[in-house]
This record gives sequence, C-alpha cells and structure tokens, in this order.
Amino acid sequence: LNTPTKLTLFLALSISMGTSAAKNWVVSERELPIPAGASGQLQQAIAEAGKPSVAARSFAPTSEKQWRELIAMRAVSSPLLLTELGASLNLSISRDEIAGVAVHQILPNKIKPQNKDRLFVYLHGGAYVFGGGDKSVREGALIASMSKIPAVSIDYRMPPDHPSPAAVDDVVAVYRELLKTHKPTAIAMGGTSAGGGLTLAVVHQIKSLGLPVPGALYLGTPWADLTTASDSLHTNEGIDRILVTHNGMLGACAQLYAAGEDLHNPLISPVYGDFSGFPPTYLVTGTRDMLLSDTARVHRKLRVAGVVADLNVYEGLSHAEYWMVTGSPEWQQTYEELAAFLLRHLAP
Amino acid sequence: LNTPTKLTLFLALSISMGTSAAKNWVVSERELPIPAGASGQLQQAIAEAGKPSVAARSFAPTSEKQWRELIAMRAVSSPLLLTELGASLNLSISRDEIAGVAVHQILPNKIKPQNKDRLFVYLHGGAYVFGGGDKSVREGALIASMSKIPAVSIDYRMPPDHPSPAAVDDVVAVYRELLKTHKPTAIAMGGTSAGGGLTLAVVHQIKSLGLPVPGALYLGTPWADLTTASDSLHTNEGIDRILVTHNGMLGACAQLYAAGEDLHNPLISPVYGDFSGFPPTYLVTGTRDMLLSDTARVHRKLRVAGVVADLNVYEGLSHAEYWMVTGSPEWQQTYEELAAFLLRHLAP
Repeated sequence: LNTPTKLTLFLALSISMGTSAAKNWVVSERELPIPAGASGQLQQAIAEAGKPSVAARSFAPTSEKQWRELIAMRAVSSPLLLTELGASLNLSISRDEIAGVAVHQILPNKIKPQNKDRLFVYLHGGAYVFGGGDKSVREGALIASMSKIPAVSIDYRMPPDHPSPAAVDDVVAVYRELLKTHKPTAIAMGGTSAGGGLTLAVVHQIKSLGLPVPGALYLGTPWADLTTASDSLHTNEGIDRILVTHNGMLGACAQLYAAGEDLHNPLISPVYGDFSGFPPTYLVTGTRDMLLSDTARVHRKLRVAGVVADLNVYEGLSHAEYWMVTGSPEWQQTYEELAAFLLRHLAP
Repeated sequence: LNTPTKLTLFLALSISMGTSAAKNWVVSERELPIPAGASGQLQQAIAEAGKPSVAARSFAPTSEKQWRELIAMRAVSSPLLLTELGASLNLSISRDEIAGVAVHQILPNKIKPQNKDRLFVYLHGGAYVFGGGDKSVREGALIASMSKIPAVSIDYRMPPDHPSPAAVDDVVAVYRELLKTHKPTAIAMGGTSAGGGLTLAVVHQIKSLGLPVPGALYLGTPWADLTTASDSLHTNEGIDRILVTHNGMLGACAQLYAAGEDLHNPLISPVYGDFSGFPPTYLVTGTRDMLLSDTARVHRKLRVAGVVADLNVYEGLSHAEYWMVTGSPEWQQTYEELAAFLLRHLAP
C-alpha cells in the first residue's frame, strides 16, 4: 500500500523544493480581485478608487517648512463645518477649552435619561500630525449621535511644535478635570488610528499616575506600534488602499511625533505596555488593514490580562474604511455595535 | 497660505498617479520579515520551516487512483497512537460507533462534576478529504483534556466514495442519537478548518430539520467558503505557510467534496446560510491565515444575527498554527480560552 510511487516521490520532492532557509521571505506579486464578501458599497468604493501605488505614496516631507505647509493644507477649520455637521447629526458642536486644552463640546439634541451623566472623550486620528482643528470632531460627533451620549473631542497639541508626550499630557489634563464632574466608570474614551493608539497610551499614563481608568474604550484600528514590527504593515503593503505603505508618510510621522524618543516607549507605542486593569474595550479593523496586526496584538494582550475585549474584523476593509464609507453596512455595524457596547458597559 | 507650491503640486500629481482603474489589482512582490510580534515559539517554527513555494504547492491529484493513494499515504491509524495520546493527555480514547457512524469516545480521567452531563462533539479537519481514522481525534482529545469535558470525535465519511452531504448526514445522525442522552444546551460542537466549516453546515441542517441547536460552537479557522470569494485567499497566498495556495490541493478538495453540487450551497459553503438562532461561538484565526476572511465573515454574520460570537486573531499566524505549534502561547491561549468559553456557555 505504501510503496513509493511517482506521486509520493513528487510530493517528497515538492516538500523539499517548497522551503528555503531565507529569514526574510520575498513574497511574489499576486492578483487581487475586488473582495466579493465585502458590502456592495465597500466594493464600489474600492473599484472607484483603483489600485494604490506604493511608489507614489512613498513621499514624506523632509523639512520643517514642508511639514508646516502640508499640515496647513490639510487643516480645515470653520464654524460653518461645525454647524452643518451638527445639523446633519442632530446635535450641537461648540469650541471650548478644558484645563487650558482646546476641545469641542458635542451635545446630542436628544440625550437619553440614562446617558445624561455619561461622557465620550473622543481623540482624533491623523498619525499624530494631521487632523486637528474643527475637522477633528467628525467621528466623535458620529459616535455621540449614534449613542446619544454627550462627547468632548480633544484637539490635542501636535508636532512639529509639540511632539510626544504633549498629546498624552493634554488628554490626561482634560481627563483630570472631567473627573471632577463625572464618575470615571461613566466616561468612555476612544478614537480611530492615532486616536486609538493615543487612547491606549493615555490609559497607561492614567494608571501610572494612580488615577481611576475610564469605564470603556473604543479602539478603531489603533496605531499601537509605531515601529515596523507589526506583520500586517508588510503583508498588507500596497493592499491597504488608505495607508498603502509605512515607508513614507507613516514612518515619517512616527519619527516626527517621537522626536528622538525610543518608539518602544509605551506612551508612544502602547502595545508594549501592561494592559492589566484596562476597562472593557471594543476593537475594529479589516482584513486589508495595515494595522490589522496592531489591533489583533492589542486585543490579545487585553484578553491575556483578563480584560473584556471585543474584536471585529471586516472583510476586504482597509485602514479606517468603516468610518470612511458612510452609510455602508460596515459603517452601520461598527457604530451601532459600538453604541450598544458603550451603553452596556458604562455606569449610568 | 494655501498658494500652490512644489509640494502641493507633487501631492496632487502623486494622487492622480497613485490610482488606476484596473478591476483586479496586481500587488507587487514584497519582503516579509519573521513576525516580531508573534511568540518566540511561533517565530522559530516559521524560521525553521522557511519560505513556502506557491509553485511547488500547486499540485493536486487528477485521477481517483491518485486521490486514493494520497489519502492512504496520509492516514495513520493504530491502537498505539490512541494509547499514547490518551496517556499524554490523561484520558482514554476508544473506537466506537453511534448510529452506524464511526466515532472515538474520549473520556478525561478526571471529569469535573459540573461536566459529567456535558459533551464536546469534535469534527476533524483535512479539507473534507484527509485526516480520518485514529489521527482524527487529536485536537478533540486536547480540547477534552483542557476543558475536562468528555468528547465524541466523529470519523465522518469522505470522498471519493462519499462526497457531500455524507459528512453532514453522519454528524446529524450522531447528534440525533446523542440528544437521547444529553440536553442540546449541554452539547458543544466544533473543530478546525473543514471541521469548523462542517460544524456550521451541520447547524444549518439541524435548524432546517427542526432539531434543537447545540449549546456552544468552536470554529478554528473554519473553511466556511469553498469558492474563491474570500479576500484572504488572495492577500495571504504564499504568506500562509500551511495552506500556501488555493490553486492546487485546496481547490481540488473543494471540487471532490462538492461532487458537482454548487459550491454556494450553504451545506457546502456555510457562510452563505442564515445564522439566526446559532449558539454562542468561539472563533480563532491569524493575520497570515488564508481563511482569515472565512473566519471574519462568519463572525460578522453571527454578530449581525445577534449571536454571542468571540473572534480571536493571532499575530503572524498561518492556518491552524495555534494547534500545530504545541506549547506555544498561541496554543495555550486558544485552548484555555476555549475551555473557559465552553464552561461559561454550556448548560450543566
């Protein structure tokens, strides 16, 4: 029965041919269809955007002047934006300051009675360099609208003028102030990308200062590791149509934010911190996300630390697309489930 | 401030250059380091195995004779294997038959009192073609050992002699018989790869027959879609060192199992079924897994149907490696958390 045949010899040969001892693998080019298992809206967004080019996206500013130009170009602040956003989401948004830090107050027009003492502290994304000003409130306003919980969106300081740890310091200062009027267990904190990473870094810092942690966290594809350790930075390069590559803007932002500090510092790359005592956490990512690994690694560390942590991975979804493809099932499921998670875990 | 500069012109150009309207993207080759965020044991296993070759793995049998040779070559059945496995896991394993179907009874030497009426029904993997006989009990025995719950491992019929729906029929026949002595809510069901997919197909069938569903499910990187729709079949081709490619053995097994039936039939590709009324489900996969998408898609469908579903994704992990790299943190976390999940959700 088990006499070697042409077939068994072929298999033995293919096994020995099939491996090589190279430490870094060169993975060959592949053809990638539109993901058939994604929603129709997401498929359409991917088809319309077309294939991202790693080469074209490998650009990053090389001088402070270039950084400032780019930051200014991407920033949009206007009272009109806030008014329009508020009207579309049935809430009001106003600029404010807490503990000397610029914030936006987001107040749903209809707040459920059980939510009146609850608060969502929103931290915007943008690789710690972009996304400040009035634009920074958009996802926070959506979360406030879906959950009917008031929100404070923090317009934390950023480089080149204010690298790490200014962002962490700003959020902690606001949080300290909010603790005077809110139970910590009634406060949620979170955001997408750098906003998710910053949330984790802030909780590390809150713990080391002996302050009570919030009652729940939202980590939208958190930038939890600013080094290149995460596997999906490599596997999903050129596949994630939003981030495209680390070797350009993303890596440059990491350096600008860290300003010479070791990227393994848990206040910069919070995946390297201790996750014991963290509150219940909702996590979202996608199979094409370059931060799939950041999200999965944080989820695992939370679970090993005994924390309630709920990981959700969307088919064919690039970095933060659940937020970008407005109205898609991926968008709807994310913010509806997040709202339900907050209502379940926050103290009234 | 916003006057066009060389920088803004460069960016505008790179955005227009960065996209193309091609429907299928050709993603270029990339260099892949050993995943630094995986455990030391997993990193070592990956380094020792070396780079998988898509070309070498694109082989599949082309005749019934070749299939039978390969199946026979891969099968190992011996009483010694069962004795050794039982001794190493502190349990006893015996061959048996339920409702005319070959099974193995797995009895932990120490069963917790609250587990005496509970049962884990284990369905082995092997792409619906391989993995039968005494070898089929190994993961089921591990689950019984870790959870201290008795298990029945079903050696369901397989092609070429018995294609779909023989496997589903066998498991349903055994389940019907087990319902005479067990509460459905005290029965868990699950397995890895085809075992996970078969679990889902069986629950679809149980529902359509009007039988009560089990109390909990375990889906280890379930083969839930036998078509090529899942995105990670494409993104992780040549990266997943276990499956390597769909274009060979895996696709051939799908055809052999379906035997001419539409692969979209939910009893063959259960991701296309209706997930309402499914019991609490524990899911495991990895960032390099070619069935990452199958697992994530099933998780989403379960959640949208209101089912308790717990998704866990391991960094740098290929298909079913949590089971293969014995003793690794990935292995330990998977089976310890699964045991805790079963004890939490199964009726006593």
